[in-house]
Amino acid sequence: MNKIALEKISYGLYIISSFKEGRFNGQIANTVFQITSEPPRVAVSINKENLTHEFIESSGYFSVSVLKQETPFPFIGNFGFKSGRSIDKFNNCSYKVGKTGCPIVLENSIAFMEFKVIDKVDVGTHTIFIGEMQDGEILEEGEPLTYSYYKMVKKGKSPKSAPTYIKE
Amino acid sequence: MNKIALEKISYGLYIISSFKEGRFNGQIANTVFQITSEPPRVAVSINKENLTHEFIESSGYFSVSVLKQETPFPFIGNFGFKSGRSIDKFNNCSYKVGKTGCPIVLENSIAFMEFKVIDKVDVGTHTIFIGEMQDGEILEEGEPLTYSYYKMVKKGKSPKSAPTYIKE
Repeated sequence: MNKIALEKISYGLYIISSFKEGRFNGQIANTVFQITSEPPRVAVSINKENLTHEFIESSGYFSVSVLKQETPFPFIGNFGFKSGRSIDKFNNCSYKVGKTGCPIVLENSIAFMEFKVIDKVDVGTHTIFIGEMQDGEILEEGEPLTYSYYKMVKKGKSPKSAPTYIKE
Repeated sequence: MNKIALEKISYGLYIISSFKEGRFNGQIANTVFQITSEPPRVAVSINKENLTHEFIESSGYFSVSVLKQETPFPFIGNFGFKSGRSIDKFNNCSYKVGKTGCPIVLENSIAFMEFKVIDKVDVGTHTIFIGEMQDGEILEEGEPLTYSYYKMVKKGKSPKSAPTYIKE
C-alpha cells in the first residue's frame, strides 16, 4: 500500500473561522468540499485539538474564506502554523463579522461563505462538520490557491526561511 | 447570498467504483477528500439515486481512481453522464479487480486507492461515505485533472446529480 496515492487528491486552501464568547479565531484548511447543491451544504474536516474546533463546537457556525493564488507566505503562516491560544490572528488582518456572527477574513480572499452546522461526524483525530450555507459572496476575480500550487511553490523556497512554515 | 461563491472551492476528478453480486459500476465524482492521516481515511459524497451508491451500500467498499489532466472527454462522458443501469461502463475500459473486490479503473488514471466503508452520513440528496484506506498505488507520473481545468479549459459540465451542480 502506497499512501502517497492520497497526495494525488486535489484541494484548495481556505481559512475557516468561528467565534466563542466574543473571541474570534481562524485556521488554514484544505479539506473543504460541497456535498449537496439543494440545499447548498459543505463538509469540512477539523482537527479536534485546534482552537477553531472548540469555537465551531461552541457557536455552531463557521465561515470559509477562499484564498487567492497570490496569497503571501507569512499570511498563510499566521493562520496555518500558529495557535489562536497564543496570538490574536485577526490582529492586523482585514475582516468583517458576517450574518452568522463569524469573523470573515477578507484579505487575500476571492470569495467567502458562512455556514450553520447541521451535523457532525467523529472520525478519530478530526471532526467532519456539515454546514448549510447562510451567506456567501464573490470578493474579487482571480484564481483560487490550490494545495498543489502551495506545495510546489513551497519546495522552491530555501530551507532557511522555511522552518517557520513547515511543520511536517 | 451568492451561491457562485461555492464554485471557488477546488476539486479533482475521480472515478468511484464498487460492486454488487458480480456486477461492477463506477461513476465520476469530484467530492473526494482526505479527513485523517492516521489511519488514512477519506470522505466521498455520492448521490443516492446513483447505481454506485447502491453498490457501495451493498459491498461496503469503494475504489478511487485519480484521473489525469489529459483524460479525453468521451471517457469522462462514459462514466459521468451515463448510468450503469443501461450500460456496462467497464466494457472496453482497462481495469483490474483490487484487494477489496472493487473494480479499479486504470485507464487515464495516475493513482488509485481502495477503501472500506467505516461510517456514513445522510446529508439529504447525497450520502457521505467515510472510507479507511486498504490499498493504493501510483500508476504513472502526471498532473491530476482538476475540476476547474475540466470546466474552464475543457468546457465540461456537471450532471444534475452532482453535489456541485448549479442551475444555469
